Amino acid sequence: MSGVDKIQGPKGTRDFYPSDMAVRRHIESAWRSASIRHGYDEIDGPTFEHLNLYTIKSGEGITNELFSFRRAGGENDYALRPEFTPTLARMVAARGPSLSVPTRWFAVPNFFRAERQQRGRLREFYQWNVDMLGIDSPTADAEVISVALLALESLGLRPGDVTVRISHRGAVAGALSAIGIAPEHMDAAFTLLDRKDKLPPAEFIQRAPAIGLDDKGRVAFEQFSGTRAPMTGGVDLLAKTAGIDAASLGSLEATRDALRSCSLEEWCEWDLGIVRGLAYYTGVVFEIHATGERAVAGGGRYDRLVELFGGPKTPAVGFGMGDVVLGLVLADKGLLPKDPLELLPRPDCFLIAADDAGAMRIPSIASTLRRSGAHVRTSSKSSRNVGKLLSDAARSRARMAVIVGAELSDGLVTVKDLASGAQHSVPLDELSTFVRA
Amino acid sequence: MSGVDKIQGPKGTRDFYPSDMAVRRHIESAWRSASIRHGYDEIDGPTFEHLNLYTIKSGEGITNELFSFRRAGGENDYALRPEFTPTLARMVAARGPSLSVPTRWFAVPNFFRAERQQRGRLREFYQWNVDMLGIDSPTADAEVISVALLALESLGLRPGDVTVRISHRGAVAGALSAIGIAPEHMDAAFTLLDRKDKLPPAEFIQRAPAIGLDDKGRVAFEQFSGTRAPMTGGVDLLAKTAGIDAASLGSLEATRDALRSCSLEEWCEWDLGIVRGLAYYTGVVFEIHATGERAVAGGGRYDRLVELFGGPKTPAVGFGMGDVVLGLVLADKGLLPKDPLELLPRPDCFLIAADDAGAMRIPSIASTLRRSGAHVRTSSKSSRNVGKLLSDAARSRARMAVIVGAELSDGLVTVKDLASGAQHSVPLDELSTFVRA
Repeated sequence: MSGVDKIQGPKGTRDFYPSDMAVRRHIESAWRSASIRHGYDEIDGPTFEHLNLYTIKSGEGITNELFSFRRAGGENDYALRPEFTPTLARMVAARGPSLSVPTRWFAVPNFFRAERQQRGRLREFYQWNVDMLGIDSPTADAEVISVALLALESLGLRPGDVTVRISHRGAVAGALSAIGIAPEHMDAAFTLLDRKDKLPPAEFIQRAPAIGLDDKGRVAFEQFSGTRAPMTGGVDLLAKTAGIDAASLGSLEATRDALRSCSLEEWCEWDLGIVRGLAYYTGVVFEIHATGERAVAGGGRYDRLVELFGGPKTPAVGFGMGDVVLGLVLADKGLLPKDPLELLPRPDCFLIAADDAGAMRIPSIASTLRRSGAHVRTSSKSSRNVGKLLSDAARSRARMAVIVGAELSDGLVTVKDLASGAQHSVPLDELSTFVRA
Repeated sequence: MSGVDKIQGPKGTRDFYPSDMAVRRHIESAWRSASIRHGYDEIDGPTFEHLNLYTIKSGEGITNELFSFRRAGGENDYALRPEFTPTLARMVAARGPSLSVPTRWFAVPNFFRAERQQRGRLREFYQWNVDMLGIDSPTADAEVISVALLALESLGLRPGDVTVRISHRGAVAGALSAIGIAPEHMDAAFTLLDRKDKLPPAEFIQRAPAIGLDDKGRVAFEQFSGTRAPMTGGVDLLAKTAGIDAASLGSLEATRDALRSCSLEEWCEWDLGIVRGLAYYTGVVFEIHATGERAVAGGGRYDRLVELFGGPKTPAVGFGMGDVVLGLVLADKGLLPKDPLELLPRPDCFLIAADDAGAMRIPSIASTLRRSGAHVRTSSKSSRNVGKLLSDAARSRARMAVIVGAELSDGLVTVKDLASGAQHSVPLDELSTFVRA
């Protein structure tokens, strides 16, 4: 073996050094806690799936960006998972009617999309998925939104920092009909609506005729796509918008009522420009946005998907929230410490040898403390300068320093509280109790 | 879209339903806690790397089993990570001398190996990696072993359930020389030694001449590969084995002394048949075994690897411990509950509506409790039969049931402790304090 040039990680992926990992775990821990507090159980699936799991079901938006592969000499085409919903639908279909109703599941998997790297977009990222299956009700739609908001709130975000923009595929279809979109152009109109914010205006104008819009229709479409309104007070966007059918309207109003009963209305607004890019959504859809960034989260109701994967008819609603945009938003709002290592658990104690006899005893003392559950750091320096070593102890953020040396012959060590500076002599056999208190 | 046949997950991968995930998180949590208690910081890397990260450095054992791929139209060959050490070496090389000495890092990534699925072997699995870099000392070797043992001990395993088999590449090379292996056959002899337990005896006999062994030499090789001995008491295997050089011997003895000072000797034995399959190991190597299973963990010293990836000369020692074999061992020893869902956190409370007015209030009560940090479950049944709903509450493993109904007009709810059966009326605005106590 000979030396080689430094190899880089693949473009669009991340190396997580301890401070990067501290942020990732901080976010994941808020996700996990919000899920568990709502009674959701964690699941996961394989990191790669058979390619046809994605090509059969998802919209164009995803299959264009797949990392697909075939083993040399192999017969199967695989793809790195680009999202969780197909895996979830496959898992629900496999268990069929034996699952309890409702099924509340969450997952925190990584996903892969072979797209151009840009702000908020990477080729590998982590995403929280929350799904409630078995109940077709606006209270379920509101519940998954409340799970998302609990996590965002516990990360320090407040209404106004992020907004849940809520829409409904049926309502949008009705409204688009009313401004003249023909049924045969509806899918294309949805795709255009989903991408509109990302398209240069000139390209949007160029595409409008393909969905049957003349100049007047295009202006109406543009106006429709750009109107948002708070859920409460001000303009009642739902009443103002022509063409929404009674069922979709009822569903949106009931979702609002359920959000109101949890005091979550002020986080939310109506935005009929939201349709979500994936083909499988059927009812309420939503995205969570902070100003000036891509969506922090997106989801909605997908009542037909499980059945399409061979399972029983299963109404379902859920969302995904990625770590990349959320991390940018938290940093932007000053909600991450300057040194992310401060997010990590503090050591219970830092062991210091005051002399060579003390140094000999450190391994066994550390071992005993760790076996009792304590988080223990030691110095790797050969220095016996207790003052300097106490500075190292403080830098480690330990709650206390344990100085091992002079008093050892009496079976004692010195414990120094690093916040108050108070010092005590503690018998070695009581040290575990003292450190874990 | 039309219905399709049920799609299966790829062969050798797992779907983690809640009870499977509970076991995975139980194991990961022991891994993480043992790492943190020893002062290790968590890191991670990308799930796929440039293919040449693996083809350049690792032994034949790994590169044969890579899931490698190239994007249609792309120029780069990638591979799903089959192990963590190359990523770690790349990350250390990228940061170079700016890292603190020693660097203590752990990771809990998933890995991929395209091998035949069999007991204890899957194509995707999770593996704990623990590495200490920057210090070339037997105390570092002993420290990573003690991290591994702390996790196994906290999962309920005891000495005798699993054994750390310790060896040294230098010692093995010396001993093999002494029984007549020529330097040009040493690599092949290591490979044969590593695989010997997995080969049928006839195939071993057939392969012996290729490493220059006549019948007598083969018997000596066989004897050498099969001898294990406890570290303490009984046969002193190191003294008995001819050809071990002084440096390797000193290193093994100092490792034993360091393990002894942490009272870990009884978990360990000498086994000069252990060499590890990967080409990058340089000194002490070890595997952790339970009787009758593949290795639970394996690791050792790899002092030249970081330099080979373009970084500064960096002594290093570490190990990997997979979730699959460990899960089998825990199940075999009765160390997992019959219902793995018992491993999950218990709900703080289960909300029950005693009447329709109560049902109306449940969403807002649940929301308030969850925002205060409580883990709250609710019934999705429309039943108002409090007795039946209390059974559901008990089945959910909640600590208490909160019955919302009759007393609402007085601003009260009934809290029932599900273990003792004790009941209290509690003012609604004190419920959070009560539930979180």
